Amino acid sequence: MFPLPRTNQRWLLTARPQGLARESDFFWDETPADEPAEGQVLVRVIYLSLDPTNRNWMNRADSYIPALPIGAVMRGVGIGIVEESRGCDFHPGDLVQGLLGWQRYATMDAAYLNKLPLFEIPLAGYFGVLGHIGLTAYVGLLDIGKPQAGETLVVSAAAGAVGSLVGQIGKIKGCRVVGIAGSEAKCRWLKDELGFDAVVNHRIENLDEALRRHCPEGVNIYFDNVGGRVLEAVLGQLALRARIVCCGMISQYNSPGTPGPANLGALITRRARMEGFLCSDYARRSPEAFSELMSWFAAGKLKYRLEIVDGLENAPASLNRLFDGTNAGKLLVKVSPEPIEAPAPARTM
Amino acid sequence: MFPLPRTNQRWLLTARPQGLARESDFFWDETPADEPAEGQVLVRVIYLSLDPTNRNWMNRADSYIPALPIGAVMRGVGIGIVEESRGCDFHPGDLVQGLLGWQRYATMDAAYLNKLPLFEIPLAGYFGVLGHIGLTAYVGLLDIGKPQAGETLVVSAAAGAVGSLVGQIGKIKGCRVVGIAGSEAKCRWLKDELGFDAVVNHRIENLDEALRRHCPEGVNIYFDNVGGRVLEAVLGQLALRARIVCCGMISQYNSPGTPGPANLGALITRRARMEGFLCSDYARRSPEAFSELMSWFAAGKLKYRLEIVDGLENAPASLNRLFDGTNAGKLLVKVSPEPIEAPAPARTM
Repeated sequence: MFPLPRTNQRWLLTARPQGLARESDFFWDETPADEPAEGQVLVRVIYLSLDPTNRNWMNRADSYIPALPIGAVMRGVGIGIVEESRGCDFHPGDLVQGLLGWQRYATMDAAYLNKLPLFEIPLAGYFGVLGHIGLTAYVGLLDIGKPQAGETLVVSAAAGAVGSLVGQIGKIKGCRVVGIAGSEAKCRWLKDELGFDAVVNHRIENLDEALRRHCPEGVNIYFDNVGGRVLEAVLGQLALRARIVCCGMISQYNSPGTPGPANLGALITRRARMEGFLCSDYARRSPEAFSELMSWFAAGKLKYRLEIVDGLENAPASLNRLFDGTNAGKLLVKVSPEPIEAPAPARTM
Repeated sequence: MFPLPRTNQRWLLTARPQGLARESDFFWDETPADEPAEGQVLVRVIYLSLDPTNRNWMNRADSYIPALPIGAVMRGVGIGIVEESRGCDFHPGDLVQGLLGWQRYATMDAAYLNKLPLFEIPLAGYFGVLGHIGLTAYVGLLDIGKPQAGETLVVSAAAGAVGSLVGQIGKIKGCRVVGIAGSEAKCRWLKDELGFDAVVNHRIENLDEALRRHCPEGVNIYFDNVGGRVLEAVLGQLALRARIVCCGMISQYNSPGTPGPANLGALITRRARMEGFLCSDYARRSPEAFSELMSWFAAGKLKYRLEIVDGLENAPASLNRLFDGTNAGKLLVKVSPEPIEAPAPARTM
């Protein structure tokens, strides 16, 4: 049996968008997949995670990672299966995760990959409750937000991948949880299925008034995924010694230069703390985080929802759904089939 | 000998200013001083501290303390001498501090006063290096900013009462200190007399460019007294895990509603913390703070500068000097003479 030639399909970044990314900012390229060099693996990408921060990576300026050069494969977190390996600890059939990129085959240094810890969860569910999403929600709320039972936790983009986990972890920790989302369907899901105490539809409700009503003792913790106007409204309702967990500011990603909140002085009058973090700084905590997240999941205390877009060719058009809010659940792109012989479920951590 | 009648002179708040306070927002009132009731003291005010936050107290909205009602004596921190006392631990001749107000005589509950700890320092100097000013600089920099030797500390309103102490404490702790001030004379004072490593005159220099030049490794700690545009410039130069100490936002006090910085996302990319505080929460730390501040002062490591305005009638017109930057040093109003028989200097803490 001779090896089949592998044609890589990939989206290259060709232009830096102003505002929302457009499909014309990417170029669909087909080229033979690179053979792995010594210390490298060739991975077939199965699922690609679409995250709001992907938009930041398209900008000219470096952020927490270097800017993506024009002409490079669009950056993205993915799950894949090792098909070839040379001189490293990975073997064909290993499931891995890493910055695989918007492509069908990733040939990359083994050092940039992690084996996927195997849990009793569908492969796509890994990004629903574990991976960078679960770790972000877990360390952001627990390490930065430091919730205490009885406190009021407000979460924006509450029906999003991170936000929905944050709210549920808040409930587990005994907080009163108020979610801000952008549709009635999302609000219903948060309240009826995830057990949020209150929800605010920011598209139809007066945010200041609704927050005052739902947080009569003020906001102790605000898990901020959006920045901008919502951040300003919450700053106006802070309890003493409140913590604002700066996880994302998606309201700004497509419009840099938008002025910030006019009421930052509330940090002084309320003796409040506002702190940013990146889950990548907490990689060492992931065994603990994933183990606890899975125990909550197994106990029915954590739910997640996935929206899986089929086909790599649909990645560019799907990215903006994170910003117009039309996705319902963690947004994934299915790039290629899951392995037929799924590895035996076993906790390998 | 019969007691002399005491005529109280006082500034009442009569209007809530839009923008800068005007003298017409106050009313000069003369009336017999109230006799102290049981548990009260009558204090002759000697020095009144003018602080930027006084302007906040004139607004309709409550801040960290309730809004001042129209018709009330303007609120202010002062030093005075007890002249009468009824049923409490104060005695005539005691030097005290508290919210004495913009008036010649304060008749108030003893519970709202503190005896002035006596140090080998002129009475007016108490507000230069101790009192609410010294405590603010001390706990703000040390407790919130947590400086480490070798780090870069940026201070705004660096020639102000708090800022000048913060920079000097930063030097004591081994930081590289960069001060931002609004005149060449202030910048020279900071550099030549207080030992700041670098200074930026924000009125004539490009702030972004100057910060980049003076902070090649980024800003580890920013002690923010002004907010607004300066905060935005520093956010653009944060080092990883930077701390922003939110002490004041005087750029906003006269223009509430001014948009905030457009680049708060830097808190995420730099994993930075921004935290507000009020020195009144740290009253328990004042013995430790004052003792250490005085030891640094005695060793010549801390200097202060006072600008003393003579006469209570000049208080309203002097307040705005804190905002146009024409004061040179801690701004005080001398309301009445110091006691001729000064208490023997003795450390009583």
